[in-house]
Parts: sequence; C-alpha cells; structure tokens
Amino acid sequence: MKTIKYPDLTGIKDLLKRPLFENEIIKEKVLSIINEIKLNGDKALIEFTQKFDGIELDKLHVSEEEINEADKVIDSNLKNAIEVARKNIYKFHKSQVNTISKIEIEEGITCWRKDVPIQKVGLYIPGGSSPLFSTLLMLAIPAQIAGCDEIIICTPPQKNGNVAPSILFVAKLLGIKKIFKVGGTQAIAAMAFGTETIPKVDKIFGPGNQWVTAAKQIVNSFGVAIDMPAGPSEVLVIADDSANAKFVAADLLSQAEHGADSQVILISTSEKLITKVEDEVDILTNQLSRKMIIEQSLKNCVIILVNNLDEAITISNIYAPEHLILAVENHEILAEKVVNAGSVFLGNYSPESAGDYATGTNHTLPTNGFASTYSGVSLDSFMKKITFQKLTKSGLAKIAFAIEAMAEAEGLDAHKLAVTIRGKE
Amino acid sequence: MKTIKYPDLTGIKDLLKRPLFENEIIKEKVLSIINEIKLNGDKALIEFTQKFDGIELDKLHVSEEEINEADKVIDSNLKNAIEVARKNIYKFHKSQVNTISKIEIEEGITCWRKDVPIQKVGLYIPGGSSPLFSTLLMLAIPAQIAGCDEIIICTPPQKNGNVAPSILFVAKLLGIKKIFKVGGTQAIAAMAFGTETIPKVDKIFGPGNQWVTAAKQIVNSFGVAIDMPAGPSEVLVIADDSANAKFVAADLLSQAEHGADSQVILISTSEKLITKVEDEVDILTNQLSRKMIIEQSLKNCVIILVNNLDEAITISNIYAPEHLILAVENHEILAEKVVNAGSVFLGNYSPESAGDYATGTNHTLPTNGFASTYSGVSLDSFMKKITFQKLTKSGLAKIAFAIEAMAEAEGLDAHKLAVTIRGKE
Repeated sequence: MKTIKYPDLTGIKDLLKRPLFENEIIKEKVLSIINEIKLNGDKALIEFTQKFDGIELDKLHVSEEEINEADKVIDSNLKNAIEVARKNIYKFHKSQVNTISKIEIEEGITCWRKDVPIQKVGLYIPGGSSPLFSTLLMLAIPAQIAGCDEIIICTPPQKNGNVAPSILFVAKLLGIKKIFKVGGTQAIAAMAFGTETIPKVDKIFGPGNQWVTAAKQIVNSFGVAIDMPAGPSEVLVIADDSANAKFVAADLLSQAEHGADSQVILISTSEKLITKVEDEVDILTNQLSRKMIIEQSLKNCVIILVNNLDEAITISNIYAPEHLILAVENHEILAEKVVNAGSVFLGNYSPESAGDYATGTNHTLPTNGFASTYSGVSLDSFMKKITFQKLTKSGLAKIAFAIEAMAEAEGLDAHKLAVTIRGKE
Repeated sequence: MKTIKYPDLTGIKDLLKRPLFENEIIKEKVLSIINEIKLNGDKALIEFTQKFDGIELDKLHVSEEEINEADKVIDSNLKNAIEVARKNIYKFHKSQVNTISKIEIEEGITCWRKDVPIQKVGLYIPGGSSPLFSTLLMLAIPAQIAGCDEIIICTPPQKNGNVAPSILFVAKLLGIKKIFKVGGTQAIAAMAFGTETIPKVDKIFGPGNQWVTAAKQIVNSFGVAIDMPAGPSEVLVIADDSANAKFVAADLLSQAEHGADSQVILISTSEKLITKVEDEVDILTNQLSRKMIIEQSLKNCVIILVNNLDEAITISNIYAPEHLILAVENHEILAEKVVNAGSVFLGNYSPESAGDYATGTNHTLPTNGFASTYSGVSLDSFMKKITFQKLTKSGLAKIAFAIEAMAEAEGLDAHKLAVTIRGKE
C-alpha cells in the first residue's frame, strides 16, 4: 500500500493511472481461435476444450439429467440465499421497465419510443476455479424481464467435465435450458458466429479473463454487440472520521481478493483513520483464504489523505471507479456530487459485497474509467429503443415548409420532394 | 432495381445482405494520421487540413466574428424552419428526461439509478459539399438537455476557409461557441486525444464518410466512447394497396440520393403498386439534382412482392432497417410487430424526411443491421446511469446470510467478511 498525503490535484490523473494492458499478442491468437471455430464449429470447440481445459467432451449441451443432479448438491441455505438475491435483483430491474408515452409534438404529429427486447442474447459465465453463479443471476434476470426470445449460457466445464452445480441450479431456477459447456475465447466465438449446437446471438454479456475480453472486443468489431469493455475490478472508498476502520479494511480486502490486478483506493480526510485501516488490513488479511492474491493486489493499493471531502470526490470523479463506497457521515450530500462511478454504496452498512450479491443492483459495471461514459448492465442492456412517428396530412402540412427549407439548404431535393408531393395530393 | 416475387423467407437474409466494407487498408492510414495528431497536435491538424482539404488555416477555432457573419447570410425562411425543428427536437428529447425513483427493496435497503451527464462530448458535423446543420441540431439539443459540461463541434472548413454558415447559425442559436475547423480522421483524433486548441472529449458523436467511421472505431478501441457503429443510410418501405405510389417513389428516392451506397428496399403485397412505384421513380428521378447518385444507388434497390403483410414485417425484422416506413392501411397494427428498426414512420403522411428534419425524433440511427441491438441517439446517449444503494444496519442484517452464503460458495471470503464484521459491531 502506498500512502500519499495532500497531493496536488492537477497530478492526480497520472497518480491513479491504471496499468495498461497490452493485448496485441493475445489478439492474434484469439483471432486464430475464432477463425477455427467459424470454420469447424462444434468439432473445433471440442478440440479446444480438450487442448485448453484438458477435458474430453462428447457433447456440448448440458443434459437435463446433469441439471437435475446439480439441484441435489446445493444445500438449502445456499438455495435460500440465491432466492433472496433473485427476488431483489428481479425487483430492482423490474422497476426499470418503461411505459410508452406518446408525445404530441403538435396536433397531428405524434412521436414515441418503445423498448423492444434484443432477440437473442448469450451469457458468458466464468466457471473454472470460481463459478460465478451470481453473475448468471445478474444477467439472466434482466434478460428475462426484457423478454429476450432466446437466452443461452456458455460456461466452461470443471475438471470432472460437468458444469458447476451452483450455475446449473441458478439456470434451473430461472428456467434456462440452453447451457453449453464451453469457456474462454471459444465460447465467445461460438455465440458470435454460431455452430451446429450453439446458436448465434445478437449480443454477448459477461465477464472473463483477458482472453474472453479480447475475444469480445474482436467479435464486437465484426458487428456482434457486447455489454461493455472490461478491465480489472475496482473499488474506491471515501472515508471520514465517522467511518469504522474495520469495515473499511474489509471492503478494501473484498476488492483485493478478486485478483492480483484489482484496483483498491482509499481516500480519507482522517490520518487517524488511515493508520487504523492499515492496521486492520494487516490483521484481517491473515484470516483470509485468498491471502496470496490479496498481498499481490495490495501492492497497487493507493491511500490518499486529503484536506476535505470536496477534494476526495473530485479525485473520485477523475478516477471514475467501478465501485464507490461513501463511508462518511454526510453520505447523502456527498452522493449528490458523484459524477463518474459505476455503483455507489452509501454509509457504513452498505458494503460492496451487498451490491455484488443481493441488494438488487447489477454487479456488471464499467471498469477502467469507462464509468465516465458507460452505464452498468441494466434492463436497458437487453433492449433497444425504437422511435416511431405518425403524422396526419394536416400535421405534415404544419411542418412542411420547415422540412422543405432545410432539405433544400442541405442540397437534398428528393427529401424536399417527398414532402412537397404529399402537399399536392 | 431488382424485383423479386414471393421469395422463400429462409433465403431472405442472404438476399438482403448488405455490401461488406473492407477497410483494413484505410485503417492503417487512419492509424498513422491519429498517431501524428497525438504527437504533433495543432501543427499536424493544420498540415493535414492543407494536405487533404487544400486549405491554409492560421487558426482552428472559429472566431466570434465569423459566427456573427454567418447569421447575416442565412435567410429568414431557413431561420424559421430551423426554429421549428429546434423546438420539436427539444420537446421530444426533453420528454426523455427520467426522474429518480428510489426503490425500497426491503425496509432498510434502498436502491436507485440516477442519470448523470457525460461531461465532455464532441460533435462531428460533416460540412464539405453538404453541411449537415440538421445533424448539429440532432446532437447538440440532447447534449444540452442532458447537461453535458462541455460541448464542442468539429466540422471541416469549406473551400473558402470558413465553416458553412448554416452550421454556424445553428451553433449560435444553441449557444455553442467551441467550434473547430477540422474534418475527417483528423477531427476524430483531435477530439479523442486533445490538442493545444481542441479539448479531449469523453464521447464522440456524428456521422461521416468511411474515414471518419474508421477513425471512430479506432479511437473507440483506445477507450473513447462513440455514439454507434455506422454504415450507409437505409430505408425499407412496406406498402399495400392503400399506399400512394408517388409518395412511396419519393421516399425511396429521398434515401437513394444520400449516396451511391444507400440501401433502398420496397416490400409490397400489391403487384399493381410495385409497377406504379417503378414508373414514378423513373419520372421523378429526372426532376432531381442528385440524379447521378440516385441512379447509382437504385442499382442496389430491391423490390419484393410478398403474399401478406406478416411476410413483409418478417423480412423487415430480419433486415433491421435504419428507417422503416409503413405505408399500409393498418399501420398501427403493423407497427406493433416491428422488432428491429431504427425509426418507424406510420402511414402515408409520415415521410422519412419529416423525421430527418423536424418531427422531433433523432435522425442519428443504427444502420447496417445494428438496429437489432443498438438504439438511435437519444437523451440517453449523453448520460450514463449510476446505481446507488443505501442499507441501514438492520437492512444489511436482513440479507447478511444471503451475501455470506453466496460469497462463500463463490470462494470469496473477504466478501463474506465485509458483511460478517458489520454484524458483530
């Protein structure tokens, strides 16, 4: 952990620069895998799964039997936990449904927008060492609320050739049956272009390692939509004297355990708190199973002592964190000043892990500074908005001169004609 | 024009395949221009403007004097026309403002989303032979409603070294003062990375030729957001016996005049109408100034005779047109069946050019089939949604077991700890 006291704000952008990921070499390899799958479909998928995962598959589609078996393995406490998350995620995303409101621009000119589901979506769920069944909840629930026609899941098989039971349990709970055992670049390529078994989709969602990320970028450049660009996960905590050092330490650690490249930042107005947090981080790290990863990622951790909370929020807005925790007394006021962030956690009892799993907000969020321009996944991510307009004869007559004059000024006389000819009839 | 009668729907996707644009060679050149601008800033911009546009500029920023001069050149009819468009675009986009609604997930757990403007946006407005001042209205008005901190315009100078007066008039009307005389790849690079004169922006909007499109794709891969991927403009008209052949012909022509690569499709249940439209197209083409372009693009025009309107809308949904005109008697019913389209025009008195200029809907729309996953530009394009959550101590306690169980099942024990530790306090 690196502590910086009262930095000059002009240099803050460089100070908090995220590591650049050079993935040109990966991209070439990814492209060759994609091409192989476009060419040889399922056969290539099975070969790559053997080559990369060391698993011999006879079929890619997860059988109903395997799904039913998974149900038996999951203990009832976890089932209840998942049900709580499902209910809350459903409630928050259901609240995002828009109703159509027709706007009468003038009498005879009515315009409106309609949310229409994207027809086919593919969800990539990492599932090797750590099966992210929570991500399946976060992606599938809004897809179902949106009303997507087809929802498919690709997830890598575990060492035993089966998909992680927790993922299958969630899929069953939600009634999703098209689950395919394929991971990494192969999965993204299969969903982007389709194979004999795996349907081509319109949009691909889900997190993954640098291979998955590179594959998503490449298929995106070929015209397949993706949820958002991805980078390592991040948290920025703003804390004042009212914060609890133990809580703050645990929040920093829960980000740090994601991976050695996780970004962890603490900004505080209190030197006393900073010292306490540092101590607590040391104490708590020793209790955690992912200690090795945590120690790696804490090397990049930056702690900044600032003069006041305005400075803190300014720095945060420059950094544009994926997760922002406001562990300050007047968190409601500070929250109003947030300009760039993925998801914000207010007060001492709103840890990031609550949003990661169960408050109902989506945990698929923009990283790497993309929070300044991109939103996290929401119901909107599974829909597109189509605009409509209906003009009556008299409605068109009212704006005819405007269209004609503007079309003429832009040198587009067929545009003008399309209006003029209707006036003559 | 190619007419196809009662095609088999299974082959329709190939039949309506859009031409593929191979821009790998362009991309290399674009990349070298971008690198030059990153390196040499304004100096490179001025050099490229001399090289590509043949114009010697001493400064890039449009002066207040030049803006005021433009005002004098625009006739009052066009000024009135622009005011009508401005008013309607404002009204429709203002109706898209969301209010925050806080969702009580459970007592003590409150979640909400907030729309926050993207801070800095750059608008690229083509302005060589045809200055698209209407596009400036379409982009700047929602940017202003969103409340973006900084709105800048890049637009190429005309032969005389000045920016087209119509563009300057609109900029003045809207109160935008940061206008820079630079076009093409150079403009996109300047806005993406910033130069001494031109500020770096977070998101770039606006149409352009294949150079501009390639530049937008490249800067997007470097992390600068863009409005959407772009291709040639398109219209698909569905018409039955109730349609007016003259109107349909004019609508097809108003798309065809955009460029030789414009995509124009007519689907009809009426063979009689098709014949009449073909005749009218021939007659009207001769009256139009862009006859040469129209004749080129009509070569790609496809006319399809179908058995019924269900077939017509199925084909349209497969094609996913940028603009869809429903020149049919029961257009309200057919509109309900639209799944993929950018903007839809209902009935005989809703020509595409009405939406292009003045109904209030946005004319920056997804082309090239992207309408199946992307929305057109709207107020949303200038905002991102940030999620917030606030839990009280008892609120967190209610879902603590769920977070703990799920974190444990995903092997993330610091996530679990962040909750457990709060319960103990």
